[in-house]
Amino acid sequence: MQQSPHSLQSQSLFASAVDSAVPLSNLQQTYAVIPRERPYTPLLDRVDSPADLKAFSTADLIALADELRLFVLYSAGQSGGHFGANLGVIELTIALHYLLDAPQDQIVWDVGHQAYAHKVLTGRRDRLGTIRSKAGLTAFPERAESVYDTFGVGHSSTSISAGLGMSLALRYQGRAQTVACIIGDGAMTGGMAFEAMNDAVQQDADLMVILNDNDMSISCSIGGFSRHLAMLWESGYQVDISDAGEPILCRRPDMQAFDRRKRHKKQRDVPQLEDNLFKAIGFTYFGPFDGHNIPELLRVLSLAKQVKGPVLVHIYTTKGKGFAPAELDPVGYHAIGSLPAEDDAPKIEKAAAKPSLKYSQVFGQFLCDKAVQDNKLLAITPAMEEGSGMIEFARQFPERFFDVAIAEQHAVTLAGGMATQGVKPIVAIYSTFLQRGYDQLIHDVALQNLDVMFAIDRAGLVGEDGATHAGVFDFAFLRCVPNMMIAAPKDENECYHLLNTCYEYQGCTAVRYPRGVGTGATITQPAQTYNIGKAVIESVLGEKDAPKKLALLAFGTMVATAQQAAEMIAKSPLLASSCQLHVVNMRWVKPLDTTLLEQLLLQGVTHIATLEEHTIMGGAGSAVNEYLLNDSAAFKNHRPAICNIGIPDRFVAHGSQSEQWADCGLDVEGVVNQLQQLLS
Amino acid sequence: MQQSPHSLQSQSLFASAVDSAVPLSNLQQTYAVIPRERPYTPLLDRVDSPADLKAFSTADLIALADELRLFVLYSAGQSGGHFGANLGVIELTIALHYLLDAPQDQIVWDVGHQAYAHKVLTGRRDRLGTIRSKAGLTAFPERAESVYDTFGVGHSSTSISAGLGMSLALRYQGRAQTVACIIGDGAMTGGMAFEAMNDAVQQDADLMVILNDNDMSISCSIGGFSRHLAMLWESGYQVDISDAGEPILCRRPDMQAFDRRKRHKKQRDVPQLEDNLFKAIGFTYFGPFDGHNIPELLRVLSLAKQVKGPVLVHIYTTKGKGFAPAELDPVGYHAIGSLPAEDDAPKIEKAAAKPSLKYSQVFGQFLCDKAVQDNKLLAITPAMEEGSGMIEFARQFPERFFDVAIAEQHAVTLAGGMATQGVKPIVAIYSTFLQRGYDQLIHDVALQNLDVMFAIDRAGLVGEDGATHAGVFDFAFLRCVPNMMIAAPKDENECYHLLNTCYEYQGCTAVRYPRGVGTGATITQPAQTYNIGKAVIESVLGEKDAPKKLALLAFGTMVATAQQAAEMIAKSPLLASSCQLHVVNMRWVKPLDTTLLEQLLLQGVTHIATLEEHTIMGGAGSAVNEYLLNDSAAFKNHRPAICNIGIPDRFVAHGSQSEQWADCGLDVEGVVNQLQQLLS
Repeated sequence: MQQSPHSLQSQSLFASAVDSAVPLSNLQQTYAVIPRERPYTPLLDRVDSPADLKAFSTADLIALADELRLFVLYSAGQSGGHFGANLGVIELTIALHYLLDAPQDQIVWDVGHQAYAHKVLTGRRDRLGTIRSKAGLTAFPERAESVYDTFGVGHSSTSISAGLGMSLALRYQGRAQTVACIIGDGAMTGGMAFEAMNDAVQQDADLMVILNDNDMSISCSIGGFSRHLAMLWESGYQVDISDAGEPILCRRPDMQAFDRRKRHKKQRDVPQLEDNLFKAIGFTYFGPFDGHNIPELLRVLSLAKQVKGPVLVHIYTTKGKGFAPAELDPVGYHAIGSLPAEDDAPKIEKAAAKPSLKYSQVFGQFLCDKAVQDNKLLAITPAMEEGSGMIEFARQFPERFFDVAIAEQHAVTLAGGMATQGVKPIVAIYSTFLQRGYDQLIHDVALQNLDVMFAIDRAGLVGEDGATHAGVFDFAFLRCVPNMMIAAPKDENECYHLLNTCYEYQGCTAVRYPRGVGTGATITQPAQTYNIGKAVIESVLGEKDAPKKLALLAFGTMVATAQQAAEMIAKSPLLASSCQLHVVNMRWVKPLDTTLLEQLLLQGVTHIATLEEHTIMGGAGSAVNEYLLNDSAAFKNHRPAICNIGIPDRFVAHGSQSEQWADCGLDVEGVVNQLQQLLS
Repeated sequence: MQQSPHSLQSQSLFASAVDSAVPLSNLQQTYAVIPRERPYTPLLDRVDSPADLKAFSTADLIALADELRLFVLYSAGQSGGHFGANLGVIELTIALHYLLDAPQDQIVWDVGHQAYAHKVLTGRRDRLGTIRSKAGLTAFPERAESVYDTFGVGHSSTSISAGLGMSLALRYQGRAQTVACIIGDGAMTGGMAFEAMNDAVQQDADLMVILNDNDMSISCSIGGFSRHLAMLWESGYQVDISDAGEPILCRRPDMQAFDRRKRHKKQRDVPQLEDNLFKAIGFTYFGPFDGHNIPELLRVLSLAKQVKGPVLVHIYTTKGKGFAPAELDPVGYHAIGSLPAEDDAPKIEKAAAKPSLKYSQVFGQFLCDKAVQDNKLLAITPAMEEGSGMIEFARQFPERFFDVAIAEQHAVTLAGGMATQGVKPIVAIYSTFLQRGYDQLIHDVALQNLDVMFAIDRAGLVGEDGATHAGVFDFAFLRCVPNMMIAAPKDENECYHLLNTCYEYQGCTAVRYPRGVGTGATITQPAQTYNIGKAVIESVLGEKDAPKKLALLAFGTMVATAQQAAEMIAKSPLLASSCQLHVVNMRWVKPLDTTLLEQLLLQGVTHIATLEEHTIMGGAGSAVNEYLLNDSAAFKNHRPAICNIGIPDRFVAHGSQSEQWADCGLDVEGVVNQLQQLLS
């Protein structure tokens, strides 16, 4: 078995960690490689539901943690998927399912990419390898998948609100069931978690919140809240829980395995904790505790469960725990691809060499290029520095880079505030997360017509992450907002120039581009400034005098699909002679190129199809309809048949992007079929 | 001059307050009646810009507070408008404009309904009487109105984010200007305020946040955060600010004028403060201070201004301060109407007798009626108990009423959590504020198809509050979401039955109704369950054999307008004989009554107009377009002319609702004009 330098390095870390002061109860295995064969898991094999855990001894539970970790490693190697966060909550998941009686008791996960162990223990062990693949398990908890998945999730910071809702509904009905919400320190920065804590105290709800503090969200945890957690940690003291369920302050046992936060360690002689945010808001607070110590977790959680009112248990875990390479590089191992068939080395997503640039990389390149030319450029991300392609920009221009943590509302209004002072902020945000900043986009940017650009990544169908992460509503919720301009590039090169075009425009703009790579178009220099609202005729196929003339009005990534579909139709014996096709790269959803639409109508277009990777309802096609029916002069006299091609009115399940496109009729074949129907 | 019993009672309060232990520096006037004549304000008359304050002595500033308060009272009596919050920040506004150099220094208001004094001191004194009226001053700060209005606002909890954006942009440019954000305790519960505080610490930004703590948001301040502020208050101690700018803990001078929070007062012998939330997050904290004491404000704010990094100054004020009736009833005096011409008594909005029920009252009645029949019903409001018509429900069913404070994101996900436990939550929310819970509606409710009803109030144009409060995007941002059903009642009676219909349906539904009163329709009993997605032909006018057949597809409140417009057209000599009119109450935006649409097409409709009080882009008319162009069988052969009538693609300025409708061509005359164009 070959080992990469990375994993060798990790093994030495493993050795030193075991040699030092890890308590015996914490002595779980650390692995250095991902197994390619189904590991031997005799204890785990006995767990078909959480009830099976009840007979386990504490020693069994500790051993089970090893098996479960190894099984998750193996399974993730088979299927790819989220990784580090899952390894970090192995012990917590076991402790919760041992102590609570799910599904009567409610375990509510946040973000949900750490629920693999939960899925394994709740009857889905043998299906874990199917995770994220079409018809397989979802990447996140999903109510339709299991009665143990109490609340669907994928976005961050929802668990306390959802759990509080459950707790209040249960209390109202006189049902005594425990509700436990798990939330990471990264997710805690999302404002709605604070809103929920405020309300939990107001309601004096019986609610257990477990703060899984691993000192990082996806990249790194930042801000006052993170500093606060570090201070709680560094104090050297702990609010423990007495047998009577009361908080007691005591000197914390040393946990040398966790040393990341000791960098600012202060020495104190008297028991003292900094002002405690959770106590300030009205929670009973216990912690911090070692989240990998099963006996400690069992002791603390069983006592906390009996406390009345909202209680927060602060545990400290290591992302990637038990897999040495991931402990060393938790960001790189946030998620992994499946193991390649012929190679033992774990495949890290970020390291996978791709022939073309991802759209996020195009954005990153634009940022760096433009920042050199224009010192007004500032860039904001809500905790997606890496996903949004901003690492190099942040390195080169640290004073112009603002990672605001998971805080989409704030990110948008922050940009609005910046724009009032003569700089040009760019908000880099995933389409699905922009939904969190929608009111701010309207109220704090567009209404004031402030000079802010939105770089909207992961638009359209996003593949394995499924419906929670799809960015398929943005045209609809953005184009109704006055002052907004919306561009949709057809490929990487156009993305670069549209970013430049929108950047140069004074006002609210959005450039919307998809996950992953595009057609592989090479980026040309220098950056161009396109005409706003000007579409481009991509190609004209077929005979000029054909009786049918079809205009394919394609938006964004659908331009390439439209082109291929047009070529297939042009070659089809049935249609080739009877149909002329115009493939149009619309480029702008708002404003539309109405001049071109008029020209097409005057040229006698008999059929119009709009194509977009967006829900049909309210989308770009709908904008074309509105123009033609209301404002077009030519349409009054000459009225071609119209069809809107896009995503139907349902949530699209996970699978590969290609599978999702096919599912929605947005692959070339599906588009050809729809066009043939239109033409017939 | 006649006095109401209310104001007499208030005068005695005034007397007792003055007799007791109010410090001398706080001895401003308290008024018992709203002056009908422009008061004598010699000092105020000298202030045409904040620079004019610089020559004032402290005694002048104290006297100016009296004049300014009286002037605001007089002006609000003339124009109506927000009231209590404005009276509460008279001293703060004076102190800020005295100390800072606006517009170089940036003063950022939150919500903004307390900016009247700010408007008066920044050159708008003589226009204050025009506030909220068409072409007059806006109800809130607005950048287009004044260079002193640094950030437009109307929604809550934005000021720290916006101010932080300014501070970071200024620092980046090397400009040393002070940024002061004012935020109320009610607005602090909004999660984005927490997000912004977290980030301000991360950025170590020079930012002064002034927490204006008046123990209430619009109705009353609730939750853990409010409890926390009360504890800071009740401790009897104060974190004061030394001349060196350092926090020092000292026994707080007694402030008997503020006794609301003494109800839980604890006795302590040693200086001690509870865990401090602001310090925990990383702010330097000073307070609480008397926010009506100008010398104290000047001392504290001038020192705090010199502190590096984020600093929070906690001041304590009384909503309605200085007007005795409002001090007694701050909720009732949140806003007032203008004084009636013939009567001295102040006109309180809530007391104004109206001939018909407001829509919010219809909702309140439905809640009470349904709760009696169905014990599964729970109702949630984000701090709009009164505005949403829920006071009686909260009184009758306190255990089923959940006011979550200003926390729209949480409100929606809380409902989702509740729905998982077999109860039926109703989220009562203003259309404009639902924008804050958009991601939660998608991710936490619709995606999981949970059984939650949204009662969407203040939809459409809302009049004097202007563009920040308009609810004109909801059809667009809701109808693209799978699983959503959207109903739009034509009048109060239909609203009642649609609420019942959506309540009875198992899934995600929204009933969308406007601000104010409707046609005055009487509510019939018992509650009906309409067919979902079934429209109603309201009337057919004109000759069956007329060459033109126009279908008016009207949504919600536009049904009445459509009916009147149709009657005018039916009477017009030009069109009467040549046109038959179908007025259709569409009732549902999603699903659409496509059966009826097919019937109308088959009956030979030659023209179709859609009518809605919503932006045309992506609205209900757009849904009709999509159906006809894509899915209608009859439309393929028979293609009437179509026009979509709605709000154009611009933000609509404040004015009365009638003025706004006329401005958008949505009054009867405007609709008739558009229909005539369509028919010609």
